[in-house]
Amino acid sequence: MSAGRVRVVGLGPGPADWRTPEADAALARASDVLGYGPYLDRLSLAASQRRHATDNREEIARARHALALAAEGADVALVSGGDPGIFAMAAALIEAAEGGEPVWRALDIEVLPGVSAMQAAAARLGAPLGHDFCAISLSDNLKPWDVVARRLSCAAEGDFVITIYNPASRARPRRIHDAFALLRSMKAGATPVAFARAIGRADEKLTLTNLSDADPGLADMATLVMIGSSETRWVARDGARPWMLTPRSYGAGR
Amino acid sequence: MSAGRVRVVGLGPGPADWRTPEADAALARASDVLGYGPYLDRLSLAASQRRHATDNREEIARARHALALAAEGADVALVSGGDPGIFAMAAALIEAAEGGEPVWRALDIEVLPGVSAMQAAAARLGAPLGHDFCAISLSDNLKPWDVVARRLSCAAEGDFVITIYNPASRARPRRIHDAFALLRSMKAGATPVAFARAIGRADEKLTLTNLSDADPGLADMATLVMIGSSETRWVARDGARPWMLTPRSYGAGR
Repeated sequence: MSAGRVRVVGLGPGPADWRTPEADAALARASDVLGYGPYLDRLSLAASQRRHATDNREEIARARHALALAAEGADVALVSGGDPGIFAMAAALIEAAEGGEPVWRALDIEVLPGVSAMQAAAARLGAPLGHDFCAISLSDNLKPWDVVARRLSCAAEGDFVITIYNPASRARPRRIHDAFALLRSMKAGATPVAFARAIGRADEKLTLTNLSDADPGLADMATLVMIGSSETRWVARDGARPWMLTPRSYGAGR
Repeated sequence: MSAGRVRVVGLGPGPADWRTPEADAALARASDVLGYGPYLDRLSLAASQRRHATDNREEIARARHALALAAEGADVALVSGGDPGIFAMAAALIEAAEGGEPVWRALDIEVLPGVSAMQAAAARLGAPLGHDFCAISLSDNLKPWDVVARRLSCAAEGDFVITIYNPASRARPRRIHDAFALLRSMKAGATPVAFARAIGRADEKLTLTNLSDADPGLADMATLVMIGSSETRWVARDGARPWMLTPRSYGAGR
């Protein structure tokens, strides 16, 4: 039996032209492809490739399945939206390896990076991440809300651009409202804010607003929320929506 | 005269298999390719494509040049290492458009995202960015050091994983030492730290250490420094360097 392997493959935000050649090569070569069903549906797999679709909430079970298949000699592509390293499957795979069979930790495992949602959103918006920023997942499924709130508070105190992943779901629709209430108590109302939904997909939508006027109800699981620093500003264009810019210099416009 | 355009093209960390098909298409189509000389040297350009190599410190001049060429009808690829949106050329281009000729703000301009250095480093390390993180440029060329220090302090206070871009250069070799001194006063000495140098290139090098033992002198302009949160840990493997993991859950190991 040949030694198996696992590649944790970043699919990027959706379109094939945002996926790296490295990721495509790993997908083409894999004997087994595991992932959230809708992600697998977007790929062109050969009939000979085994397809294992799972629910999005079963990350550890999927990771364990990937490792077990590789231990039997399979060439496994474990797919992940965006970049597997950013709030995605890489951590789940390593947690599963850490807590699983000893042989799993001796497998040939690599993480293949991809374009993450914040980068797709930033590209459409102009240059909101042109200076220091942070990324926070608003999900409190796996961490207490007070940790999330402390991080939001420190991010505002440090005047970082703030990108929010997983802002809301059906099970927790209110946390994004709590987050905006906290940020409104610490940051200027005129701070630029953008809701970037499903960037790169057919139903892509951008909403440009500011911290005072923003409707947190616009955010769902397919939305990345971007909140400026004190330096972030809109730059007007002719015949197009303005750019969101966080300049490279700090305090120059004061 | 046809209307020109500018594409700000993310080359990723170096290797072609980490560059998106969208970026490759923009490079293949461009009449004019502008960028830092060593980046242009890595590309396979046709003899008919005009090549404009500049020094890495002349970002605004290069951006103005790109806009002026496009205003004359050129199809311009303005190349950037990593992701142009993250501490790179997108902000410079928009700043140049904002402060330049009115016609520049009416041009067809798009930013094409790429894999950034922190993602390449994270992929090699395992999953250090599996949970909330921030990215800070240590360059104080364009911002006062007290802003950098405040952000480092807030990032430590918020227990973010901290990624440091531009940790040191010949002109400012000491700031990374100042940063480590500050972080050592606020975070546990056992906090995992990695220096990721030139990831994806022939001279790629990873150094795994911890906050107490780390030698800040290892960092140069080609290095990305990654400093864990209180949750980040090493996961042992057989026959390979350990993984750096920031788990998806918070406080589970306590």
